[in-house]
Amino acid sequence: MAQTFRERRDALATLGQDLVPEMIAGTVQLAALDVDLAIFDGVEIVDDLPYGPHERHLLDVYRSAAGEGTPRPVLIYVHGGGFVRGAKDSDTTPYFANLGSWAVQQGWVAVVINYRLAPQHPYPSGAQDVADAVTWVVDNIGDHGGDPSCVFLAGQSAGAMHVADYVVGHGGYGTHGRALAGAILVSCLYDVGRASHRDFHRAYWGEDTSRWGEYATLQGLIDTDLPLLLSVSEFDEPEFQEHAARLVAEWFAQRGTYPPMHYLYGQNHLTPVYGIGSPWDELGPRIAQFIGVNGVVE
Amino acid sequence: MAQTFRERRDALATLGQDLVPEMIAGTVQLAALDVDLAIFDGVEIVDDLPYGPHERHLLDVYRSAAGEGTPRPVLIYVHGGGFVRGAKDSDTTPYFANLGSWAVQQGWVAVVINYRLAPQHPYPSGAQDVADAVTWVVDNIGDHGGDPSCVFLAGQSAGAMHVADYVVGHGGYGTHGRALAGAILVSCLYDVGRASHRDFHRAYWGEDTSRWGEYATLQGLIDTDLPLLLSVSEFDEPEFQEHAARLVAEWFAQRGTYPPMHYLYGQNHLTPVYGIGSPWDELGPRIAQFIGVNGVVE
Repeated sequence: MAQTFRERRDALATLGQDLVPEMIAGTVQLAALDVDLAIFDGVEIVDDLPYGPHERHLLDVYRSAAGEGTPRPVLIYVHGGGFVRGAKDSDTTPYFANLGSWAVQQGWVAVVINYRLAPQHPYPSGAQDVADAVTWVVDNIGDHGGDPSCVFLAGQSAGAMHVADYVVGHGGYGTHGRALAGAILVSCLYDVGRASHRDFHRAYWGEDTSRWGEYATLQGLIDTDLPLLLSVSEFDEPEFQEHAARLVAEWFAQRGTYPPMHYLYGQNHLTPVYGIGSPWDELGPRIAQFIGVNGVVE
Repeated sequence: MAQTFRERRDALATLGQDLVPEMIAGTVQLAALDVDLAIFDGVEIVDDLPYGPHERHLLDVYRSAAGEGTPRPVLIYVHGGGFVRGAKDSDTTPYFANLGSWAVQQGWVAVVINYRLAPQHPYPSGAQDVADAVTWVVDNIGDHGGDPSCVFLAGQSAGAMHVADYVVGHGGYGTHGRALAGAILVSCLYDVGRASHRDFHRAYWGEDTSRWGEYATLQGLIDTDLPLLLSVSEFDEPEFQEHAARLVAEWFAQRGTYPPMHYLYGQNHLTPVYGIGSPWDELGPRIAQFIGVNGVVE
């Protein structure tokens, strides 16, 4: 484990910003050992519950082993993976059991989902799956101690884009309307019409790049009244930094305020979520503030 | 004391964003009682040392009472107050003994300065005084346990503008060149040509507002290679949010990266510094990361 913030930041800088396999594996190696095992204490996981007909329509619920008590805020997490890979959990890493378990320590219930992948399932399948997962949560989370009127959605990278699409209505809202108290978008692309034409973008948004502009969430996020927590990392790929900067400029131009765009110093594309439950966690405390502010209904 | 982040944020929201006397007094009342008295333990203050001929050319040194040891990073702090008021210390509040003492607990030496005020002393007197204070530090801080090759400058509001002017050379650099390891700008106006024509701006930048564009630091900060930590608060006045958003957009356009612009959720114009040494401190930990990264010379 790095002994200082500087050592860890230097190690991440050495891994680089490009999301190549060596960088991803190196980040997992660096971050996974730092997760504090105490976050798993007293957590009960109910796993692989189906929320739809596809084999990827599965979710895990993280809840307190101590029982239900007062209904708790609910945090749904949508993983990243460039639209084409990724999973809610892993046999070889603490991801994303770290996020689910840490959420229980905060006094919440967590729901971590799988969703259908590109290219077999292109835009807007991710947002549709998010909508179905939200529907499942509203209908069922009371059985696990959660408050169905206090649901937060978080996603990272492609997962953030699915959440953003859900927030702006690109995938529909299922049977309960947009049943959310807030959304958390970690390292997201907002201005899809300007996104790079890399393979996994074409896999999800399609080969007809002239249509991508319709898939943008930038304006919808500026227009929404839903509380948002946005973040960009120092060592995010330049494309993510570009979209974050554009959102800041456009949001200010239209709303006259600085948006809730959190700058995560010394973090890369993956470490905000991989660091949850570790001493290097920058994102978790901000999520706790955000849910503390927006998770209470008068 | 507020019991939760939400309670404190609500209280600050109620005080509003406008820097009127009631808001300033209310913020002091809210924040001052939360400063942890333990930060003053083991701190020795050498106060009112002159660094120039004017009665405002005074600074306080905060150092470890335990003696010198290895030379320590130095943090110079430049207070705000709309160019026309403010002071390095106070008989009735913990400001800015909180910052100086907290810095000693981090293992640094702190220097908190007064400087000449407008309208008697207009632009660029503040930057000139900062330059003279830096010269004093380089020449003298070794006697207080500080490392003259590891000096950081921080300022808030008008103080941040004086630091920014120093960084880009508007006030000259004194006898040692720009002797800095990094600069910290809390709630700063960068694009002076677009600043509002409010009284205290005219007091410092002059009645000829057509010249203010020359006083902008935006381009100089984008051009500099000096490490920077910038911040904007959720409840900053809109003008500060505007300048922060503009810096993000311009910085990205020219450098192709997202700038180190930290968004401080639930904070107002004053609380980032007033909260240092309290449980609500958002700025202090980021300064510690910044100095941890940039304060070590290989």
